[in-house]
Amino acid sequence: MTPQPSTRPQDNPVTVIGLGPMGLALAEALLKNGHPTTVWNRTPEKARDLVARGARLAASAADAVAAGPLTVVCLKDYATLYEVLDPAGGAPAGRTLVNLNSGTPNEAHAAASWAAERGVAYLDGAVMVPPPLVGDPGSVFLYSGPREVFDAHRVTLASLGDPRHLGSGPGLAVLHNAALLGLMYATMNGFLHATALVGSAGVPAADFADLAVNRFLPTVVDATLVEQAPDLDAGHYPGDLGTLHMNLNALEHIALTCEEQGVHTAQPRLMREIAARAIEDGHGASNYLAVFEVFKKAAVPDAR
Amino acid sequence: MTPQPSTRPQDNPVTVIGLGPMGLALAEALLKNGHPTTVWNRTPEKARDLVARGARLAASAADAVAAGPLTVVCLKDYATLYEVLDPAGGAPAGRTLVNLNSGTPNEAHAAASWAAERGVAYLDGAVMVPPPLVGDPGSVFLYSGPREVFDAHRVTLASLGDPRHLGSGPGLAVLHNAALLGLMYATMNGFLHATALVGSAGVPAADFADLAVNRFLPTVVDATLVEQAPDLDAGHYPGDLGTLHMNLNALEHIALTCEEQGVHTAQPRLMREIAARAIEDGHGASNYLAVFEVFKKAAVPDAR
Repeated sequence: MTPQPSTRPQDNPVTVIGLGPMGLALAEALLKNGHPTTVWNRTPEKARDLVARGARLAASAADAVAAGPLTVVCLKDYATLYEVLDPAGGAPAGRTLVNLNSGTPNEAHAAASWAAERGVAYLDGAVMVPPPLVGDPGSVFLYSGPREVFDAHRVTLASLGDPRHLGSGPGLAVLHNAALLGLMYATMNGFLHATALVGSAGVPAADFADLAVNRFLPTVVDATLVEQAPDLDAGHYPGDLGTLHMNLNALEHIALTCEEQGVHTAQPRLMREIAARAIEDGHGASNYLAVFEVFKKAAVPDAR
Repeated sequence: MTPQPSTRPQDNPVTVIGLGPMGLALAEALLKNGHPTTVWNRTPEKARDLVARGARLAASAADAVAAGPLTVVCLKDYATLYEVLDPAGGAPAGRTLVNLNSGTPNEAHAAASWAAERGVAYLDGAVMVPPPLVGDPGSVFLYSGPREVFDAHRVTLASLGDPRHLGSGPGLAVLHNAALLGLMYATMNGFLHATALVGSAGVPAADFADLAVNRFLPTVVDATLVEQAPDLDAGHYPGDLGTLHMNLNALEHIALTCEEQGVHTAQPRLMREIAARAIEDGHGASNYLAVFEVFKKAAVPDAR
């Protein structure tokens, strides 16, 4: 029988390396939950408040990693991870690293190999909430890498939020991170551009936000996406209630309206081009979700 | 004292011109609510089911408009409105037209002038739900034009959904329509592109939709937008919790990840360019909402 790890936070010490806004929030949540917490940052002043609340400030990155079985790393990028940990000898074999910086799946694969060469267990991860929501039991944290490593540290990871294991492929967490952040920026850009458009006629952003985000997005957009997602997997885009030809007509009105009102037009023009491309590819009688077929492929040379 | 219009649907007859999917839904909702309903469509076969449910099919567009005080027009565009109604003599003076096709604010202004020249009261409008939700009391319908015309027909308009008067400027309804649809397409594109990205690693769309739309969008994105909208009106973008420089870093990871995974890159590349432009304009230490300043301006010649 495998010995079960203790579920008491005080039996699960943890180290946090990197004390930017997110690293600070991670260390605070761990301390608050009762984990013995060691911290390290290139500029040690950042640790002052944490130390006042009971954290131990390590003298070096090597000392920090050696302090316990699990180190959570929250640095700018993968290059910084190597800069900080290579002089520290990587990390002592047998330890576990959980890396929460952002990057690409190839970088995550390289980091997993780097850790494996040093006998270090490795999880790649992504924090899907802003720093103030770290520690909330509903805040989603994504992890990828060996399931048993995830399970061994689940108690500690649960002190940060709602830990979800996406699979053993080390690149899955950053891939989901890129996808979700891409969705976030696209939605924010959609909102900000729409707000600029009605703002051209003097409509206050706060009024528009109530209509657009409290009413329109959840009832018309979000519900449709969840309901129709299985159609994407099936490549099934029935045009009974509206076709891409009709959507292109609407996108043309949107682009023209932006020109008339003197606001930025690159975003609506690109949306129009993508819809036109889906029609060129034979999806004109399908519904709008058929633009998924365009997105799945790299643009031929550069369609723009 | 102004005589109050009757609030009984049977005392508020209405004509619907244009029986595409949306026009059919409008006429069905009016019939269901008890309004004496006259319909007309270029191809009269489309009216068959409505006639079976009690609608009167007019012999011509002129006959349809003459049948009562209020005509709701739901055609493809403004050009079609003139094509259909000009041979009908516009509409008899004293009648009211509510026009629900999509177009641009300039087109709406032109239609309001056209109606005024003929002594016809005119509201421009936009339906913010798909046909199956027409008639639901929560479905938002936007109207712009004279307040007293809106008030005189509120009973009938309320049979279609939740009627909102945006102001007297005739272009306000299509302007909001373009803005909300732009937001819809941007959000859908964000979702579809993100789904294509995780799909490149074999993640099913239905799984991703649950995480992205049921969890991530409402808690992380939508809440932030509503909360921070007043900052847009104030041009106040404090970067304490994250700066545009950090967002550009994330957008670079997203674009690189799309290249690595072989999916379409035009959308993430444009988002990166817009963020870079906001930084060039001096907003690097602001939060992401500062891209609003980019969207408010037409691109200099063509920034792309």
